[in-house]
Order: sequence, then C-alpha cells, then structure tokens
Amino acid sequence: MALAAFGFMSLTSYAQVVEDFKTSSTTQTGKEYPMVNSEGRVRVQVAAPEAHFVQIDIGAVKYDLVKDENGVWTGESAPQDEGFHYYQLNIDGASVPDPGSLYYYGASRWGSGIEIPAHDQDFYALKNVPHGQVREIYYFSETNKTMRHCFVYTPPGYDTDLSKRYPVLYLQHGGGENEYGWPSQGRTGLIMDNLIDEGKALPFIIVMDNGSWTMERPRQRPAQGESWPPRNWAEGFMNTLIKDIIPMTDKSFRTIADGKHRAMAGLSMGGMQTKAITLANPDVFSYVGIFSGGSITVEDVQNTPGFRDNNKLVFVSFGSRELENRRPGFGGDPREETEKLKESGLNAHFYVSPDTAHEWQSWRRSLYQFAPLLFKD
Amino acid sequence: MALAAFGFMSLTSYAQVVEDFKTSSTTQTGKEYPMVNSEGRVRVQVAAPEAHFVQIDIGAVKYDLVKDENGVWTGESAPQDEGFHYYQLNIDGASVPDPGSLYYYGASRWGSGIEIPAHDQDFYALKNVPHGQVREIYYFSETNKTMRHCFVYTPPGYDTDLSKRYPVLYLQHGGGENEYGWPSQGRTGLIMDNLIDEGKALPFIIVMDNGSWTMERPRQRPAQGESWPPRNWAEGFMNTLIKDIIPMTDKSFRTIADGKHRAMAGLSMGGMQTKAITLANPDVFSYVGIFSGGSITVEDVQNTPGFRDNNKLVFVSFGSRELENRRPGFGGDPREETEKLKESGLNAHFYVSPDTAHEWQSWRRSLYQFAPLLFKD
Repeated sequence: MALAAFGFMSLTSYAQVVEDFKTSSTTQTGKEYPMVNSEGRVRVQVAAPEAHFVQIDIGAVKYDLVKDENGVWTGESAPQDEGFHYYQLNIDGASVPDPGSLYYYGASRWGSGIEIPAHDQDFYALKNVPHGQVREIYYFSETNKTMRHCFVYTPPGYDTDLSKRYPVLYLQHGGGENEYGWPSQGRTGLIMDNLIDEGKALPFIIVMDNGSWTMERPRQRPAQGESWPPRNWAEGFMNTLIKDIIPMTDKSFRTIADGKHRAMAGLSMGGMQTKAITLANPDVFSYVGIFSGGSITVEDVQNTPGFRDNNKLVFVSFGSRELENRRPGFGGDPREETEKLKESGLNAHFYVSPDTAHEWQSWRRSLYQFAPLLFKD
Repeated sequence: MALAAFGFMSLTSYAQVVEDFKTSSTTQTGKEYPMVNSEGRVRVQVAAPEAHFVQIDIGAVKYDLVKDENGVWTGESAPQDEGFHYYQLNIDGASVPDPGSLYYYGASRWGSGIEIPAHDQDFYALKNVPHGQVREIYYFSETNKTMRHCFVYTPPGYDTDLSKRYPVLYLQHGGGENEYGWPSQGRTGLIMDNLIDEGKALPFIIVMDNGSWTMERPRQRPAQGESWPPRNWAEGFMNTLIKDIIPMTDKSFRTIADGKHRAMAGLSMGGMQTKAITLANPDVFSYVGIFSGGSITVEDVQNTPGFRDNNKLVFVSFGSRELENRRPGFGGDPREETEKLKESGLNAHFYVSPDTAHEWQSWRRSLYQFAPLLFKD
C-alpha cells in the first residue's frame, strides 16, 4: 500500500513539472538548451528525425525524450542536487555529448556538464572584484621523462608587488578527472578571488596538476583487490609531485619554499593521494585537506614520526549524502576519526556539505571552507 | 567518357584506403578513435546499436559509416588537407560531437576537432624548450558594463627578469570562433615558444580576446547587405579594444605602452577587424597582420593620414586554396594590392600557405611567418 501510494505520487510529481526552465549557465553561448528549472530538473533538446529513441543520462539514470512532428526530441530529468553534474545523451544506443552544453573532463571522458543553480552559488560567482590568473604551464618531468601540463592560480596582486612571496596549495582532482577539474568546474579561481576580496582567505598560489595513474611511468595502476588507499597509485604521483612539480613551482613562481608554507588537498582519489603523500612527507606539507577521500586516524599520526610536530591543519570533508550512504573502503567513520584527532591535540576540522553527494558542489564548498584556514599561523 | 573514367578511379581510390591509421593527437586520452591515416583520411567509430545510419561530417561532406554485428559503426572520410579541421557525427539526423575527440570552439559551437599530421608540424610541436604561459584573465569592461574573459600569452622569462618590459600583439580569431581559438587549436603558445627558443622571434606578449559581435553592447551585427568589412562590427570591437582591452593589458602586464610596440593581427573576420581598427587608429598600432581577411590598398593608406608614417609592417596572407578559389567580397587581388603597397614604400609582406584553405593550418603558418617580423625596428 505504501509503495503503491509512493508510485502514484511519483507519477503525479513527474506530470507536474514546473514550467520555469531557463537556459543553463553551462549552455553554449547562443544556444537555448540545456535548460534547468527551479526544481533542478535538466531539460535537453536535440533534433534527431530518424532516431528510435533519445535519452538524457544523468546521475546514473536515463530519462526518455519525446519526439515532435519536426523530429526534435525534448525531455527532462528528475530533480538533481544543487551544483555541477556530468551527463550525456543516448541516441539509439550511442552515448554522446549534448551538442548544446559546454564540455568538462570527468568519468574518464570529455563530455557534457550541467550547472544546477545553488542557494549558495554567490561564493563561486564571477564578480567585479580583483581577479587572479589561472596560468597554463608546460614543463619537463625528469621523473617521467616527458612534458607535463598543469594549471597554476596566482592571486590578485601577484604581478603588482614583485617583492612578495606566497605559500602554495597543491590541489588534486579525483579519479577519472584531470588537471582541468579544479580550474574549470571546480571554479577555484573565482572561489579564491571572492574569498580574498572579502578578506576571508590570505592570498596564496594553487598548483593543479594531473594525478592520474595513466600519467605516471611505469603505469602504476593499483593491483586487483589492493586495499585503499592504493599505495602504488599514490606513490607514482608522489614521485612526480616531490621531484618535479614542487621544484618546478618553486623555480617558476615567487613561493615561500618550505613545509610551513605548503599545503596539499584533493578530492576522492586526490584526497587519498593527499593522505598517503602528506603522511609520507611530514616535513614537506603542514596543511592537509581530504575532500570525500577518507580521513586520517590517530593511529596514522602515531605511526608517522614528525607529522604531529609539523602539522598545522587536518581538514576532512564529505557531502552529506556520502555520509548517509557511506562508500565502502574508506575505513572508519570519518567524523569520529577526525574528532579523535582533534582530541589528540591536532588542529582537525570536519565539514559536511549539506544535501550534496560525491560531486563538485561538495568539493567547491570544501575548498571554500578549507582555504580560510590556510597559512594563518 | 572522361567523367566515367573519373568516377571509376574515384571508386578504386576509395576501395584502396591505406590501412595505416593511428590514433589522432586530438583524440581523448585513453581512447582509440578518431584515427588518421597517411592519406589524411579520418576514421571514426561509435557504438550505436539501434541507429539507422551514422556519418562523419567533415569539410562540408558527409561520409557513411558501416555497422558491424555488435552495433559498432566505423568509417572514414576522404583525405583531408594537413592541419586542423572541425567535424561532427550525424546519428540518425542528430548532429553531435564525436565522443572520442577533444573539443574546440568554431562554426559557432563547441564540437569535435581533428589534427591531420602536417609535413611542417614541428614548428607547433610541444618540445622540451623554455615555455611561456597562457594566462586566463577576467576583467571588467566599462564600455560593455560586463565582465570579460581573455587569454594572455607571456613569453619565457617573463617572471624571471622583472625589470624587462615587452611589446604586445593583439591577436584575433575568426567569425564563429572565440578567444579559445588562438591558444587552443591555433597553438599560439607553442609556436611562440619554439620561435623564441630558436632565436627567430623576439619575446612579446600576445592578448587573445573575444571579438564576436555577440559580445558587444549594443549588439552591433552588420546590417543586411552592408559592404565588407562591416564597419559597425569592427567598431563595436574597436571600442572594447581601445577603451578596455589595451588599458587592461598595460595595467596588468609589463608592456611597452606605445604605438611603436603594439601590433594587431587577426584571421578572417579578425583580419577585417584588424584592417578597420588599425586604419582608424594609426597612432595606436605600428604592425598589422591580416590572415585570410582581405588586404590593405594604396588607396586605404592614402585616405588615412598618419598611417604611412607610423606603420612598420603590413603582412597579408592566405591559404593557397583560398587564392585558387577566392572568396567573394574581399575586394581586389590581395597579392597585387600588397605588391603595390610595397612599391609605394611600405614594408608589406605577402605570404601564401601551401595546399591549405580557410583553416587553422593557414593561420598557424601565418603567425609563424608574421611573428619574426615584429618589433625588430
């Protein structure tokens, strides 16, 4: 009875789609679709006169579109959480990007992304405030014997006061993502510009490189059944970070090149890498941020000589929906572990992003909470 | 008889596709297709089990793909010219990006692009040489009362010798393109890094902004039937360039802020804007580059007081296929006009990109020829 009632309500709810759709901020200039309504539904439209079926594939669910007399298919998803989501179209069994959207790298592909307006979107909005720069960098990696590519955020004023030197945050993307994630859908530059303008964060440099196992030589994919965090995976990137990326950064930018002025953070796989790398190099980093990527335990700290003395911050965060339905393999309860870490005397912070899952809105908010805690000692 | 023979040869040629396809440099990391062979054919592959037909749409021609027993469609185009081309897939009438390619902005959309290896690709290859940076800039435009977005290339050494100041080239994209064109498919940064490393060009700053009429307020689209170059179109961007972009650049970067150290160039629509804007502001720019966008005549110079005295270079270029089949509305023969300009005493150069059309390979080569001529007076 309860199930039947729920089914009926669900159908009613679908029929009552709120007709206040607006072109999305992630729709290509000059195009009308994709659109988003106040419920967070995504409506797409594509001309495909000869197709059998067209679907929008978002949040691991496919929703059917309907064809009109001109061969144009239109349809919408169920309401989505606030923030950014990857999606694609399915046209007669072909998974393809929506030709109306902007493109982002995630789920191991360049493809469509959609922005659902969030109640707190002001913190990553483009405003008329002093702006830093996101710089595209090519450099040679001795460790990998190849050219590499990263993005570096320099804060407002970096090119004005040429005597000033800055701390550095090394900020990593998740699995199936790359160095474009944080500067693009992560909106790192805009978050920092706004925080700095409001006096909430100190200006610092942010290096966003590619931590994927596919970029390392030898290809250090974690072995089947290996436990999390996969040490080989993290260690492949650790070599590159310690031997190539940090020296390149300290050479190319006006950094304060010591462990007290260096932070590392990452999301999901990047959080696991952050944990493994900062525990293995307690003299290299003083500030640690793990977003949706596990936590650091009192035992981890006890097993790592030097970590407690050097560490200034351990910041752990999750989306609320991740905690409600905790992903396997992330160890114990991260909130409890972080509280124990704080009780043990470390400056440990735990943050929960409300009503978001393992997605970019959780990570934008995590950066927004994390950045003001950095380099203030 | 001749036609029949040609038709037969064409079919034979198609049947004898050379089977040396390799994954393209513009294919997404980890994907196999799109591929390119030594003839310059583009082979694509996409799973679309329920589709009636799938085509690759490139160079204004659609080529049918063939379905295998697993519902995977594969097929290739006729040979394409060397260099970069936009393309798309057609799945049952839906024009969509190829899910295997990287994405570029052109033809007024973000979509697929493909790189056909060129005999001269070394000049824009990624090498282990000192690299400049391409910086993403947000700034407020008083003229348009809006935030704007551009890319700025700073040469190798810009962050090392902090007392040095640099000349500036303002470099514009074509119609249906945007500020991503030159730094992405134009490979501006790599072309300059290589030229500077070889001692062929002096280091200078390059500003790549958005010159589309859709970015200007009021929206100054050229009127129906208006002659080329469309003055309103160019003037809309001229206001933004003179009043916003140049002052922003001179404020944010270590420029030499005078007309003798300022160049403007552009491709197609950007070339027409360059002509209109440099003729209207002979004291602001000394070096002029028009790539596939017409030419400057002796009469233009005679009608523009001050231009002859201040100008250091007029560079005009085309792809050879454009000259063979000259586009209407570009005025007289650009080679003759440029020769007359040279005879009149100006430093005029005419360059023809061999075996290329109105496409990026012509413009990459034009930049490669143009840059060494700049700022050497």
